[in-house]
Amino acid sequence: MKVLTSPESVRLWSREQHAAGKTIGFVPTMGYLHEAHLSLIDLAREHADQTVVSIFVNPTQFGPGEDFDSYPRDEDRDLRLCKERGADAVWVPAVDEMYPQGYKTYVEVNELGKHLCGANRPGHFRGVTTIVSKLFNVVNPDVAVFGRKDAQQARILMQLNDDLQFGVKILLGDTLREPSGLAMSSRNVRLKPLHRSQAPVLYEGLQLAQKLFNQGERSAEKLIGAVRRHILQHSDDATVDYIQLVGWNDLEPVDRVTETSLLALAVRFGNVRLIDNILLEIS
Amino acid sequence: MKVLTSPESVRLWSREQHAAGKTIGFVPTMGYLHEAHLSLIDLAREHADQTVVSIFVNPTQFGPGEDFDSYPRDEDRDLRLCKERGADAVWVPAVDEMYPQGYKTYVEVNELGKHLCGANRPGHFRGVTTIVSKLFNVVNPDVAVFGRKDAQQARILMQLNDDLQFGVKILLGDTLREPSGLAMSSRNVRLKPLHRSQAPVLYEGLQLAQKLFNQGERSAEKLIGAVRRHILQHSDDATVDYIQLVGWNDLEPVDRVTETSLLALAVRFGNVRLIDNILLEIS
Repeated sequence: MKVLTSPESVRLWSREQHAAGKTIGFVPTMGYLHEAHLSLIDLAREHADQTVVSIFVNPTQFGPGEDFDSYPRDEDRDLRLCKERGADAVWVPAVDEMYPQGYKTYVEVNELGKHLCGANRPGHFRGVTTIVSKLFNVVNPDVAVFGRKDAQQARILMQLNDDLQFGVKILLGDTLREPSGLAMSSRNVRLKPLHRSQAPVLYEGLQLAQKLFNQGERSAEKLIGAVRRHILQHSDDATVDYIQLVGWNDLEPVDRVTETSLLALAVRFGNVRLIDNILLEIS
Repeated sequence: MKVLTSPESVRLWSREQHAAGKTIGFVPTMGYLHEAHLSLIDLAREHADQTVVSIFVNPTQFGPGEDFDSYPRDEDRDLRLCKERGADAVWVPAVDEMYPQGYKTYVEVNELGKHLCGANRPGHFRGVTTIVSKLFNVVNPDVAVFGRKDAQQARILMQLNDDLQFGVKILLGDTLREPSGLAMSSRNVRLKPLHRSQAPVLYEGLQLAQKLFNQGERSAEKLIGAVRRHILQHSDDATVDYIQLVGWNDLEPVDRVTETSLLALAVRFGNVRLIDNILLEIS
């Protein structure tokens, strides 16, 4: 497995693959890899000849007071896991090469960032779309994979790819979960033991809503209410950032589920903010 | 010469060139080509194996009340001129393919658009950087050429290319002029005969400042004053939008020329707005 640091070396590697007629699958990550990231490597490998993973905790997607400094990092372990999982290359960019002094350029997808995480994290998605644009430009992938746990991010990146005409095939990997149902996240290691024991209530609440939906419930108020009640009744320490039901296409709040919709939440346990979601599908 | 319309056909053409080991030179234009555009084709051909020209009057870089509708267009003539000049391909995108319904994404280079044309044309450079990002993503050029007449645009696009890591080699073509000294522009055809006879005062004024600079004058006030006086004394119909002296690197106004600086102006004759500039070089 190649370990690349400079953008030039990545560009060269990419050109060599394409010159040899090989397609490139790309897995952008912020590192501290867990099984869900590794399943994205599997997905990329299924759909491309060569797979490259990037590991970069992107400063422009963290706001002031957010957890950029405390975001967990372990590069050696990440490299080992990528190698074991069959990645062909890993790119570990340096912050000052991605954002050198005098950096000035940002990419923004309007409208889709108004609600959900975008409402509470101004500038977050601008940071995400900017770094992904840069990574795409250097890697020039044929396929890129993102996780469904970051559903709003996934929707925004699909729009970015369409609008700026990157021509990348975007694949979304399913959310992987602990046996308790807790969605896998690099941030889970920062949960206190008490909070970790409470955190499964998030997915329990979502499953409850899924069950109601399957039984015919379409009211946003009822579905959201069921999730909220479950979380607050079964966890002493949960602070709800939001629980929202939005259309999957425009990410605008809906009163009733008449098209495929995203039921998404962000909840804090202490200083750790967790997100999770389910897609309520109308076929 | 290939005439391409769909982004897919351009992407395919580009891949074929690269697969054959050929480099691609790209000349983005808004059409209504004149000799200065054609000299950019020459420049691209000198630095790349294959040359592609795009012809697209980009709506997002025109503000409300600006001349998007009246901007001159003549596609048949443009195609003939590109062919005669040796372009290998021309891409004529359709507006609704570049900006389909629900389009949401914009690319912005901060700070460099505060002064000069940016001050009077809010959103203009955002439109330019957005469309150039899209064109770059589809064409995937090795080299791209832009004209020095649009000096602020050129500086912003160089920053865009560096910041978003497109990896394109940017070349700037010199401003070409009519025998009168008037900078060639597609908008010149919209000048009334009286205004066309007055418009050469712009470059005369800039040349006067160049002469003073060569004689040692470094004061922005003196250099700008000389240009302004010349224009207003020798043209009855000129309305000055701005005459400014800015550093070439940061495009911020300077009081004295201590680094290479841009002396730039925008002047209206009737409803036609003309720009011109010279670079005052400190070696």
